[in-house]
Amino acid sequence: MESIESWKTVSITKQLGTPIFRVDNAVRTNPHTGDNGTFVVLDTPQWVNIIPVTGRGTVVLIRQYRHGTDSITLEIPGGMVEHGEDPCLAAMRECVEETGFSSPVNAEYLGKVHPNPAFMNNECLMYVWFGCTLTAAPQFDTHEQIEWEEVPLNALHSLAADGSITHSLVLTALYYFALKYPHLAALPAQGANDGHHD
Amino acid sequence: MESIESWKTVSITKQLGTPIFRVDNAVRTNPHTGDNGTFVVLDTPQWVNIIPVTGRGTVVLIRQYRHGTDSITLEIPGGMVEHGEDPCLAAMRECVEETGFSSPVNAEYLGKVHPNPAFMNNECLMYVWFGCTLTAAPQFDTHEQIEWEEVPLNALHSLAADGSITHSLVLTALYYFALKYPHLAALPAQGANDGHHD
Repeated sequence: MESIESWKTVSITKQLGTPIFRVDNAVRTNPHTGDNGTFVVLDTPQWVNIIPVTGRGTVVLIRQYRHGTDSITLEIPGGMVEHGEDPCLAAMRECVEETGFSSPVNAEYLGKVHPNPAFMNNECLMYVWFGCTLTAAPQFDTHEQIEWEEVPLNALHSLAADGSITHSLVLTALYYFALKYPHLAALPAQGANDGHHD
Repeated sequence: MESIESWKTVSITKQLGTPIFRVDNAVRTNPHTGDNGTFVVLDTPQWVNIIPVTGRGTVVLIRQYRHGTDSITLEIPGGMVEHGEDPCLAAMRECVEETGFSSPVNAEYLGKVHPNPAFMNNECLMYVWFGCTLTAAPQFDTHEQIEWEEVPLNALHSLAADGSITHSLVLTALYYFALKYPHLAALPAQGANDGHHD
């Protein structure tokens, strides 16, 4: 179809290891010119996130301090898939750990995204978990401190529109939820992020 | 309001420099325990992306090879804001460079997101640019090879739902566009990413 071609990988060399990804240099050959170039790639585990929906028409959100932005954010539960773990089970595990909410039915797959195809090689898989109730106390990892709160389903997209939720992967999950379940949560009448105009 | 508190930064130390971000170690004090922890943070420039809309009711998308995923992706134009550059001008510049499309009116701000608050400190600002026409030949950076294509506005959200568009930041821009201009591009009847079930 198109004339855009893939590049041939010459080598992948580790530059730096960290607890959450490895920084590699990929040397690849430009298919149009034959020249080699070096590109930074983060070798990153699979991620998941999950929208917990209760039987009383609310969504469970979490609030936590984030070290990237040095700020407190409003998000849905999520995290890394452990080696060999089923992504759906990982999403449900993160939900239970971070909020204490769970449901007797399995979470439902909404779709997957590439967090950043330009320099990250991983996917984030997204789920919605219907029928959630508070069944346990949250169990935080070391250095995790999380508070949960419930918001009505009909307020969910307003939290994107007014700038209360800013994490791109959380917003992507809400978008997929809007695409799949437009009748469950109404889009607000107008205006994405109007209160945060630059 | 909440009991979630910010952490105090003890030190930020560069671990690795790359052309597109710097990898830092941030040492911070847990406000609840007083213990210090070390966290990886990418110091990353501001990003922009932009939805070019033509007068004939189409959106201009781009197809290019991406080194993170080692695959060819369908996206909207976007890139890095240069030092001191106005983000709106940066978005319009990227659109012209990558597609050759521009408009006599300025692009309109849709909102901003944090690409990943967990370990990245930057924002991505999103724009829509109405009235675009093909006014120049695209001008690619070294190693860039991009093809543009037009899709009807009413097909835009279907490209998210069917898994043709997977870049989280592009999907976020489409979500903001749906929130702000629900009448311009209809959401598909059903199903996010149903063709790509895991």
